[in-house]
Amino acid sequence: MAPFRIGLLGHGTVGAAFERLLDERASAVAQLTGSSPEIVGVLTRSRGDFDELLEGSELIVELIGGIDPAHDYVRRALDAGRHVVTANKQLLSRHGEELWSLARERGVLLGFEAAVAGVIPVVRVLRESLAAAHVQRIHGIVNGTTNFILTEMTRRGCDYEQALAEAQRLGFAEADPTDDVSGADAAAKMAILARLAFGVPVHIDDVRCEGITAITSDDIAYAREFDLSLKLIGTAERLPEGISVRVHPAFLYGSHPLASVHGAFNAVTVESESITEITMSGPGAGGSQTASAVLGDLVAAIGGAQTLAAPLEPLPIVEDVASAFYLHLEVDDRPGVLAQVAQLLGDAGASIKSVVQQGLGERAQLMMVTHPLAHSRLAVALEAIEQLEHVRSAPRAISVINEEFV
Amino acid sequence: MAPFRIGLLGHGTVGAAFERLLDERASAVAQLTGSSPEIVGVLTRSRGDFDELLEGSELIVELIGGIDPAHDYVRRALDAGRHVVTANKQLLSRHGEELWSLARERGVLLGFEAAVAGVIPVVRVLRESLAAAHVQRIHGIVNGTTNFILTEMTRRGCDYEQALAEAQRLGFAEADPTDDVSGADAAAKMAILARLAFGVPVHIDDVRCEGITAITSDDIAYAREFDLSLKLIGTAERLPEGISVRVHPAFLYGSHPLASVHGAFNAVTVESESITEITMSGPGAGGSQTASAVLGDLVAAIGGAQTLAAPLEPLPIVEDVASAFYLHLEVDDRPGVLAQVAQLLGDAGASIKSVVQQGLGERAQLMMVTHPLAHSRLAVALEAIEQLEHVRSAPRAISVINEEFV
Repeated sequence: MAPFRIGLLGHGTVGAAFERLLDERASAVAQLTGSSPEIVGVLTRSRGDFDELLEGSELIVELIGGIDPAHDYVRRALDAGRHVVTANKQLLSRHGEELWSLARERGVLLGFEAAVAGVIPVVRVLRESLAAAHVQRIHGIVNGTTNFILTEMTRRGCDYEQALAEAQRLGFAEADPTDDVSGADAAAKMAILARLAFGVPVHIDDVRCEGITAITSDDIAYAREFDLSLKLIGTAERLPEGISVRVHPAFLYGSHPLASVHGAFNAVTVESESITEITMSGPGAGGSQTASAVLGDLVAAIGGAQTLAAPLEPLPIVEDVASAFYLHLEVDDRPGVLAQVAQLLGDAGASIKSVVQQGLGERAQLMMVTHPLAHSRLAVALEAIEQLEHVRSAPRAISVINEEFV
Repeated sequence: MAPFRIGLLGHGTVGAAFERLLDERASAVAQLTGSSPEIVGVLTRSRGDFDELLEGSELIVELIGGIDPAHDYVRRALDAGRHVVTANKQLLSRHGEELWSLARERGVLLGFEAAVAGVIPVVRVLRESLAAAHVQRIHGIVNGTTNFILTEMTRRGCDYEQALAEAQRLGFAEADPTDDVSGADAAAKMAILARLAFGVPVHIDDVRCEGITAITSDDIAYAREFDLSLKLIGTAERLPEGISVRVHPAFLYGSHPLASVHGAFNAVTVESESITEITMSGPGAGGSQTASAVLGDLVAAIGGAQTLAAPLEPLPIVEDVASAFYLHLEVDDRPGVLAQVAQLLGDAGASIKSVVQQGLGERAQLMMVTHPLAHSRLAVALEAIEQLEHVRSAPRAISVINEEFV
């Protein structure tokens, strides 16, 4: 049987897991494809030669991560007519169009299922099953670290620092967690999903991004009054004026399909008129899960899968989107405070869906959920509310995903 | 642009929805594929000629359902070198191997995403993303009618007949619901999923099947003591001695990903060592959802997708599988009854995981959950338990899916 020669860049957790998995599944792949996959060489910081690897391979698996030197290697591999399979979301969210275009020109596959949402085959489903669907919106929990931290804060009532320490202790967060907790990792993934869903170029700089470091255990505790649970949600949506792609903490109602996604799991909900919605969930990117996604792309490459089609004309990025909000105010419990707050929100065009007041005297808490309004209008209202005499500190506002599902 | 000519068999709910959707998305398909899809003719009971349709088409969409005349039409279309896209689970669960084999011989696609689980792309994910994975087990809620009925029974505490009437009133159940409530529809779908997951031939007659008509509202109410919820679960699993494919009512713990699938939704969980698990959920087969799945297959056919690979050697069908059980006994509240029951279960090799007793005197209820044991061994124990003096009626036993997820 003809061999199918693979050059492996990177031999960390995922690289080693891929080598193990390929070893285990090589005969199944051979049976499926008629080619027998084998790793002909490995490049790490300390060993291997890229040119030699390229020369001897039909496909390069890039698991180095980051931009340099991964960008250069992937470009050279595609340019030389080699298939590439990568898990590198940073690279694709910055240089995807250049690389997909090069892959199309050379007639090779640039596979990237492993770059988004671990083992959940959302890339393939968007590219193929839903290729002809008109996707309206995607909501995703695409970062396992932050979902683990928020789950811990919810379950144990602990604060952000304690939950982060626990995540680090269990290996769900890196020693330097910045990329995860700032939302940057999720933003890169959402840029890629938006590209697939809408068929237009989306760069990571187009993604508005807010992380979870400012979330307090009080936010989570108070919002339970409304059956709301907090997640770091990536959203890509089609709007009349263009598209919006964003990552920020958001509250979900208990009935939302993403509300029950706990711990280091990932999940993605795709909405479109003809399908209503699909939700896919599974463990976030562990070594063997990512390796499994790489293997799926490898099989597709041997089978002659095509690379991503050229993008449509770019759509405008909408900055000022509308959403429902959860608001939390610390107020003096005096007659008329709620009326004043409601008046200022009303002036900004916000109507209140539900409200709860807790506590008495100087320590009263006012929590409310609004109907959807534009972020810019909310900002105006919050500034005015903060000036009120009996409002004791800056109001806290967090988006609420308003859809209530069956 | 070159046209891509489609012959449509059947023009009921799904056929009409497909025609509408294709009309809406034709330009998107053309942009993706370089071919412009158009329906050149429709065959219904009262109009159209099959031979003429076949002659003028490159692809036949079969939405008639049932075995005759669908079987003959699909066979003739494939034989004539036409692609076929079908939503016909009955046909594929009986004659799939013959038809897939014919499609391979003629080098055409026989697409069937629409045959299983509505809009959830489980066929593609199993065929492609997980092609090289070693799937261990699938659990599915693959019939929306029965899930709607069980959800109603749970929410409203009503009995089976009332819930069925409500489902019929809302259009979630047919006037003759036999195919759904008997589990036959789910069994056909599980046969197809098992074929994909394990790569071996699976016929609907290989699927052990039990419906929901004997379920009582008491079963559901009592099991809440254990945080168990009742679903009609399809299971396909790989065992040391072969495979088991079955459909029956089963209890799930609240933490199981399928436990939160309510109403007419479908969901499938795929387990494999390398991926851990993936869960996919979405609305069951409504007209537009099924049409969307057909459209996905149409795009794949234009793009030159390959038909299902030839099956591996058949694996033995294992009849006597093991599972945990929920047991419900009506007993006299006398000292020693629980001990006698526990003794008989122990003799059969069943250990008790948890037990609850409710009520007093002659109306006492004994509910328990066992650790896994073979069905044949349980049957022996149940027969002996029924003979006990203070057990007042035949014990009720329902499987429990034992896995507890994060």
